[in-house]
Amino acid sequence: MPMTRFLPILSWGRTYTRATLANDLMAALIVTIMLIPQSLAYALLAGLPPEAGLYASIVPIMLYAVFGTSRALAVGPVAVISLMTAATLSEIAQQGTMGYAVAALSLAGLSGTILLIMGLFRLGFVANFLSHPVIAGFITASGLLIAASQLKHILGIDAHGHTLLEVLGALAVHLHQTNLTTALIGVLATAFLFWVRSGLKPTLARLGLGPGLTSTLVKAGPVVVVIATTWAVWGLDLADQGVSIVGDVPQSLPPLTLPDLSPELLRQLLVPAFLISIIGFVESISVAQTLAAKKRQRIDPDQELIGLGAANIGASLTGGFPVTGGFSRSVVNFDAGAETPAAGAFTALGLAIAALALTPLIFFLPKATLAATIIVAVLSLVDFSILRRAWRYSKADFAAVLATILLTLGLGVEAGVSAGVLLSVLLHLYKTSRPHIAEVGLVPGTEHFRNILRHKVLTDPSIVTLRVDESLYFANARFLEDAIYRRVAEDTQIRHIILQCSAINEIDLSALESLEAINERLGSMDVQLHLSEVKGPVMDRLKREHFLDQMTGRVFLSQFAAVTELKAADNR
Amino acid sequence: MPMTRFLPILSWGRTYTRATLANDLMAALIVTIMLIPQSLAYALLAGLPPEAGLYASIVPIMLYAVFGTSRALAVGPVAVISLMTAATLSEIAQQGTMGYAVAALSLAGLSGTILLIMGLFRLGFVANFLSHPVIAGFITASGLLIAASQLKHILGIDAHGHTLLEVLGALAVHLHQTNLTTALIGVLATAFLFWVRSGLKPTLARLGLGPGLTSTLVKAGPVVVVIATTWAVWGLDLADQGVSIVGDVPQSLPPLTLPDLSPELLRQLLVPAFLISIIGFVESISVAQTLAAKKRQRIDPDQELIGLGAANIGASLTGGFPVTGGFSRSVVNFDAGAETPAAGAFTALGLAIAALALTPLIFFLPKATLAATIIVAVLSLVDFSILRRAWRYSKADFAAVLATILLTLGLGVEAGVSAGVLLSVLLHLYKTSRPHIAEVGLVPGTEHFRNILRHKVLTDPSIVTLRVDESLYFANARFLEDAIYRRVAEDTQIRHIILQCSAINEIDLSALESLEAINERLGSMDVQLHLSEVKGPVMDRLKREHFLDQMTGRVFLSQFAAVTELKAADNR
Repeated sequence: MPMTRFLPILSWGRTYTRATLANDLMAALIVTIMLIPQSLAYALLAGLPPEAGLYASIVPIMLYAVFGTSRALAVGPVAVISLMTAATLSEIAQQGTMGYAVAALSLAGLSGTILLIMGLFRLGFVANFLSHPVIAGFITASGLLIAASQLKHILGIDAHGHTLLEVLGALAVHLHQTNLTTALIGVLATAFLFWVRSGLKPTLARLGLGPGLTSTLVKAGPVVVVIATTWAVWGLDLADQGVSIVGDVPQSLPPLTLPDLSPELLRQLLVPAFLISIIGFVESISVAQTLAAKKRQRIDPDQELIGLGAANIGASLTGGFPVTGGFSRSVVNFDAGAETPAAGAFTALGLAIAALALTPLIFFLPKATLAATIIVAVLSLVDFSILRRAWRYSKADFAAVLATILLTLGLGVEAGVSAGVLLSVLLHLYKTSRPHIAEVGLVPGTEHFRNILRHKVLTDPSIVTLRVDESLYFANARFLEDAIYRRVAEDTQIRHIILQCSAINEIDLSALESLEAINERLGSMDVQLHLSEVKGPVMDRLKREHFLDQMTGRVFLSQFAAVTELKAADNR
Repeated sequence: MPMTRFLPILSWGRTYTRATLANDLMAALIVTIMLIPQSLAYALLAGLPPEAGLYASIVPIMLYAVFGTSRALAVGPVAVISLMTAATLSEIAQQGTMGYAVAALSLAGLSGTILLIMGLFRLGFVANFLSHPVIAGFITASGLLIAASQLKHILGIDAHGHTLLEVLGALAVHLHQTNLTTALIGVLATAFLFWVRSGLKPTLARLGLGPGLTSTLVKAGPVVVVIATTWAVWGLDLADQGVSIVGDVPQSLPPLTLPDLSPELLRQLLVPAFLISIIGFVESISVAQTLAAKKRQRIDPDQELIGLGAANIGASLTGGFPVTGGFSRSVVNFDAGAETPAAGAFTALGLAIAALALTPLIFFLPKATLAATIIVAVLSLVDFSILRRAWRYSKADFAAVLATILLTLGLGVEAGVSAGVLLSVLLHLYKTSRPHIAEVGLVPGTEHFRNILRHKVLTDPSIVTLRVDESLYFANARFLEDAIYRRVAEDTQIRHIILQCSAINEIDLSALESLEAINERLGSMDVQLHLSEVKGPVMDRLKREHFLDQMTGRVFLSQFAAVTELKAADNR
């Protein structure tokens, strides 16, 4: 299996049949048609020439097909990553310059390398520190930010910015320069696309079309708009009225490019590349797992890192920019019946043909149309309900989501997602540093012990059992000491303290030293310290030290045994 | 009680008697004699003129007596904080300049403000994130660093540096400039002080002196050396032979000083001041708690922050530098019979008299003598056994200690302690992100369930119980999903999965979403998901969401009830 671990293509390639080929080809055709406008649009969002979007969808897809484990994932430019790319590159070079495009290659190369290294060292778990609520908040906030940033194309004006305030401010300043023809195209295109999603979709469904076909037809909306507006601009000579168009796009296969690897540039790009890698990975793996679950297939996260790493390195060598597994393109691919990564390779072939042959046809495509497709796509991701849900369920989660949303809108994408992760971790640490400690008693008629404040339970005045609801480690070691001393100080009848360890999953060296101190201090007060229900891994570790020998009391297999035996011994 | 919360003096002041006064006065006399050389030495270590050490011991002690909760703690300059002060200030100004001394005031003022704010907002728990092993490693490494930095005074040469390599390198370069007379004084003083600790102490103990008196006499060693070497330098005119002496010290009470509060300086000092505050607090609270435990008294950590904050602000206004509760001075104070913080106030009085009247007597005191007292004091703190203990008990703790020691020695105190804290936290997070998951069965003859791999237990092929040994939160939510899917995939007999939640202390929103996904996916495989032994606080939270209604299975009070009822239902 070692070869198929790193080259999943070897496992599905062996069983490839003619029926699979037909399904894959069909899916590839549909995805190709949908991807042409999407790729152009995301290149625009990233601040790059339109062909970069096509190039970023060709070689990366093929490399992912070789190294990736998902059978339906479609890799290429996606909205959030394109936005992050634009935010990063505009710190380094002017949009439209050679330096900007070359830095995009470097960013993709660096990000690919980071992903590859993480994959080889099996560091995929790092992505888990992006909590679901933080991701949801981030996606919503960046959706808003992206939509706002595209309004300038809809209005035909110049307005840049990285935060919501900057963007809206720039729009307000330049609003009087609005090109009315452009605005008419932009607004109509946007309205049509919204209608396709909200009006056409239910209609088609009511006509009895299957959900897969409906969704595919809806996804074809952008293609219709592209054709209609391009034709209008060409036929009515609207470019002469100041409508900004895509213009000359070279007819070429993806060129061989070399990223700029100067240490100074790489140092500047390192943090953004890391964030782009992590967020791209999280987006991609979520999509891949959702689709895999539907077919009872499994995704190997570490291999996914390798697949995405290869795709990004491919993008950096062929005129692209950072890519990842996209939600909408993957869903279309899946719905259209793609069975193996070969569908992705055929899509790449389709896009290569488009890049070679079809680019003259989009000369008159208005940028406002591309902006409209972006706006409609990202606004569907905006969902503030996570705020309500988090508020109801957990204030810590709420704080993390709110910080993510506000800082993403107010300070930009990097600050937003970093703040979300940091705050989640800090709040988690804070909570574990003040653990819940319950005093427990026996539930009558059972051998089960529960909190004396919540259940009717039996207790004994000379035996107090405390259940610490947290692993014992440096951050809460002192808290435990205080809690025990407080409990013992207020009650002189106590002769035994039992720590029920069912929730203690680890005792680190700091906590062990605290236990030693507790044991000694209780000993000097003539109170014995006992442990019950110590877990295997914790016990293994305790046995390496002298604490168990020094303990004034004993270790019991179960809490029930502890209380029964201590009572019996006291009555003797 | 609100007033006594912030002014502990009101509670012990009310019951102050003549007997207490006598004890406090005696303790104060002993501590004053010991503190004079120590204060001068730590001023030298901090790179400040000797009188700064005396000033830093006067007003701070009195302020702590008013606001602090420990009855025996003696506040003033301590070794590690003085070293950190020197490391911070030398980045900002040249030693011996006015700017250096003023920046010391600013550092004390900023550190005092940070402590005060932390106390008012009850943020004392932050200090818990310095684990015991990290503290032990840090103390050991800084002890070595301090000892090495004092060798220049012993040899009478000029050699500066912030890392062990820098210091040793500078010493090697300047070694040929060694002043032989100075070196003779330095080596003899060091040897004498070591002998007092290792030779005299056991002898006195064998002669039947009590441990308190023995320890006090041993602590008087520096006073003997100070008198002897000062007399030798004066009588033999050794200053003419190039022996560096303390020289003119102004005869004055602590002056009223104003720290430099320019924003630029404060910005530079902020991080060092924070680290100094935290480390000073941890050192102080450890000493205070150890001494309080011996007399069954309690320390209020948040009030301690206020006491130390006031002391540092006092130091900044009276020509001092950062201070905290010191180990050796507090132990002497305690052993000498101090009963209330008034002993501290009397010590302050004694030092004020010394600052006014005795400073001409130390004109000829050689700096080598002070260096010798520092070296002997800090080398007693050096203890590498923590490395062995941590290695045996827990590799994560070992990694944190090792990083702390190596980085403190190699990059300086700030880098060392920051790395230790960061690594402890990251390793803790890493461990909790891959929790131990045990499959459990019934221990025969009990209602207790344990790991099937470690104990002989009863199981049922259709019912699998998994005990997750960790709170469920964002960092391990996906891990749990994977583990459950893997277990179910390999065994088609399973009809019930029970999650025994005895070790689950929290389920955050990410984990709840994972549980929803698990429930849905198991449902589609015709496997029911049940929970058992869910804790009160976790259950409260789950009830706020719809998960419990959507669950395919049930929630059982105890694991035993879960298995019994599910078996009965299946057999019906």
